This record gives sequence, C-alpha cells and structure tokens, in this order.
Amino acid sequence: MAEEKKPKTGGARAGKAGGRVRRDPERTRARILEAARVEFARRGLGGARIDQITARAGSNKRMIYYYFGNKEALFLAALESAYEHIRKAEQSLNLADLGPVQGMRRLVRFTWEYYLAHPEFITLLNSENLHRAEHLKKSKQIRAMHSPLVATLEGLLERGARAGAFRRGVDPVQLYISIAALGYFYLSNSHTLSTIFGRDLKRPQALKQRLAHMTGLVLGYLSAR
Amino acid sequence: MAEEKKPKTGGARAGKAGGRVRRDPERTRARILEAARVEFARRGLGGARIDQITARAGSNKRMIYYYFGNKEALFLAALESAYEHIRKAEQSLNLADLGPVQGMRRLVRFTWEYYLAHPEFITLLNSENLHRAEHLKKSKQIRAMHSPLVATLEGLLERGARAGAFRRGVDPVQLYISIAALGYFYLSNSHTLSTIFGRDLKRPQALKQRLAHMTGLVLGYLSAR
Repeated sequence: MAEEKKPKTGGARAGKAGGRVRRDPERTRARILEAARVEFARRGLGGARIDQITARAGSNKRMIYYYFGNKEALFLAALESAYEHIRKAEQSLNLADLGPVQGMRRLVRFTWEYYLAHPEFITLLNSENLHRAEHLKKSKQIRAMHSPLVATLEGLLERGARAGAFRRGVDPVQLYISIAALGYFYLSNSHTLSTIFGRDLKRPQALKQRLAHMTGLVLGYLSAR
Repeated sequence: MAEEKKPKTGGARAGKAGGRVRRDPERTRARILEAARVEFARRGLGGARIDQITARAGSNKRMIYYYFGNKEALFLAALESAYEHIRKAEQSLNLADLGPVQGMRRLVRFTWEYYLAHPEFITLLNSENLHRAEHLKKSKQIRAMHSPLVATLEGLLERGARAGAFRRGVDPVQLYISIAALGYFYLSNSHTLSTIFGRDLKRPQALKQRLAHMTGLVLGYLSAR
C-alpha cells in the first residue's frame, strides 16, 4: 500500500479519491489491532507471525513498526484494545439507569454473551496470564479503563442495598471477578468439563441453562439475608 | 538404571538390596507420572521434553515407552493421574458424613486450597483445553472417576433441601462447575486481574477474602428462597 508509506504526513481521513484509498492513521491502526487480536489469540505472543497480521490487515511490516514499535508493544496494544472493546460495550448497557436487580441481571447476561461472541478475548487473556501480565503491567491506561466498571457495580450494589434488595458489604471487585469466572471458566474449560461429566456443555440448551444458573447464583447470593 | 530394564519379569516391590533399588513397576510408573505432570504443566504437550521427564523420574526413555507407549499416551496418563489425585483427596473429606451446610463449606474450601497447592493442575487442564480435550476423550476411566463426585454433591443438595437449608432444583454438575470456576479463574487469571484492578490478588489477606466471598456466594445462593 504505497499510499500508506508516510502515515504522519497529511491528516486526511478515510475516503476514496480517484479509486485509491486515502491514508487514515486511525483506521489503519484499528485494522492492524483487529488483525493482531485475531493472530495473537490464535497463536499466543510467541507463535504469532507479523506476516499474518500484515496480510490480514492489508498493511505491511513497516507500517506496523511505525505505529507500534515492536511485536511486544503490538501485543500490549492488542490487549488494551480488547479490554477497551468489552468495557465500552459494558458502558453502553447504561446499568446506572436500571433497577439494581435488573442491572445485575443485565451485567451477568452481557458478560456471558460477550465471552460467547468473542472467544478470542478469552484466549488473549489466557496468553497474557502465561506471561504473568508483564505487558499489561506497562499499560498507562488499563487501570483507568476499569474504574468506571467498579464504580458502576458499586452504584448497583449500593442502590440494591438501600432498596433492601441486596445484602450489604459486597466488594464490587470480588463480585465482578465471580461474574466473569462463572462464564469464562465454563467456556475456556468446556472441553475437559464436557468430557469428565459426559455432557456437551456447548449445546444451545446447555448454554441457556448455564446462564440461568449463573444469574440465579449471583442474584440468590445478593438477595440472601 | 539397569535393574529396571525388564519391568515385567519379577514382581518385586520396592526395597533396597545390597544398596540397589529393586524394581517396582507400580512405583516406577508413579514416579514417571509425577515427573510427567510437572513437565507437561510447565511446557504443555508440544513443549514438554521426554528427556526432562526421564531425568526427573530417574528413569529412561525405554521405560517410559514401555509403560506408556508414546508421548501422547503419557500425556493422557498424566491427566488421568492428576484427576485421580484431586478426586481421591475429595473423597477423603467424607462429605457424606457432614451436615449439608458444613459439607458444602468444606468442599468450597477444599477446592480452593487444592488449586492453591497444585498450580500444575490448573496449567495441565489449560493445556488439554487448548487440545480440545482430544486426549481425555480417549480415556476409559475419566467418566467413572467423576460419578462419585456428582453423587456426593447430589446427596448434599438433597439432604440440604430436605432439612430446609437449601433451595430445591440445583443441578449438581452446574454447581460443581461454579465452585471450581470461582477459584480456578481467580488463580489462573490473577496476573491480568491484579493489573486491571490494581490489587495484588495473591496476597495472603486477599486469598482469605476470596475464600470468604466464594463461600458466602455459594451458601448464600443455596440458602436463598
């Protein structure tokens, strides 16, 4: 892509001009990140190939190094973009506008459906945990990206407690980890779990039952005296 | 180890004779399996080296192939022995002799402490899930190994319901997956979770709080009307 040789010069936004795609740093960056999420999720940091990422993104190595520096930095950027994606989708639920029970139910369902729709999110996180989060620890934005989630959950818990619907004293971070755990583990370990228990845990009916169980577990706990 | 050349001939049990370790097929096999669990947990099936396993087990390649056939079969045997280990430890809790609430509390604590003490169990399972449980599916014993666990949980749930302590209609397999999930995910993803939430989740105090939360979650749910 000759027109992407010098991404810094000219701030032209996306658009066709005489049949050629004009350069658009934002879109190029987003395309590379999306390709990187797929490739890193598929093969992990070590096995991922920059060639594959450039091919998928319709970009080239020089562009990738220009935007991201090196493979490790690209991996961090892919992680950050994956977290950004789920956190933004969560924010669009507008949980603060819902009743506490309804809001909590919505969050449990959203988290589950997000994992179902984005298996690459699970494999990316597994991969970064094998690296002891050494990349994520260098992130300047990851902490701030998670404060709104904690604040939203805190708000739901507080409103639920005031309304007499929820127990008091629940730690929002513990609760969020549990909501994530219930779906994440079921999906990331579905192969071994299906085998040891002799049930196909990925059948549509089983997935429905799982959501009902998780919702009952979280709301049952919160409402218990 | 010349004395282990022909493991099938002679059924001699372990013991020193003139300073030499006599052959003992059971112990040799167990030693190889333990070494295999460690090596496979550390590097996965692809990365594991038979040399490392023989060195750790004080055995040799011929013995390993004699007992297990090939690397994949050894991996399956390592998985089976890992499951056997946790299921046996669970059975020794004698949950059927405890009251339902006390029994459930004990199972939650045991599962958590087992994961804490055996991080290789978590990495082995992660590894087999990357392989879509293709090895475990060939196991002739893994299903039977899990029936007692499901039966025990079913018994606890039934006794709890009869005593009016637990809600009715809880699926023991769903509940077990949830108990496992709450601890497993917390530990296997502790690096990313600690980073995004800015808390050291592996601090002794944090581990205590996690156990309290998980216990409250499970018992709160079960006891809710």
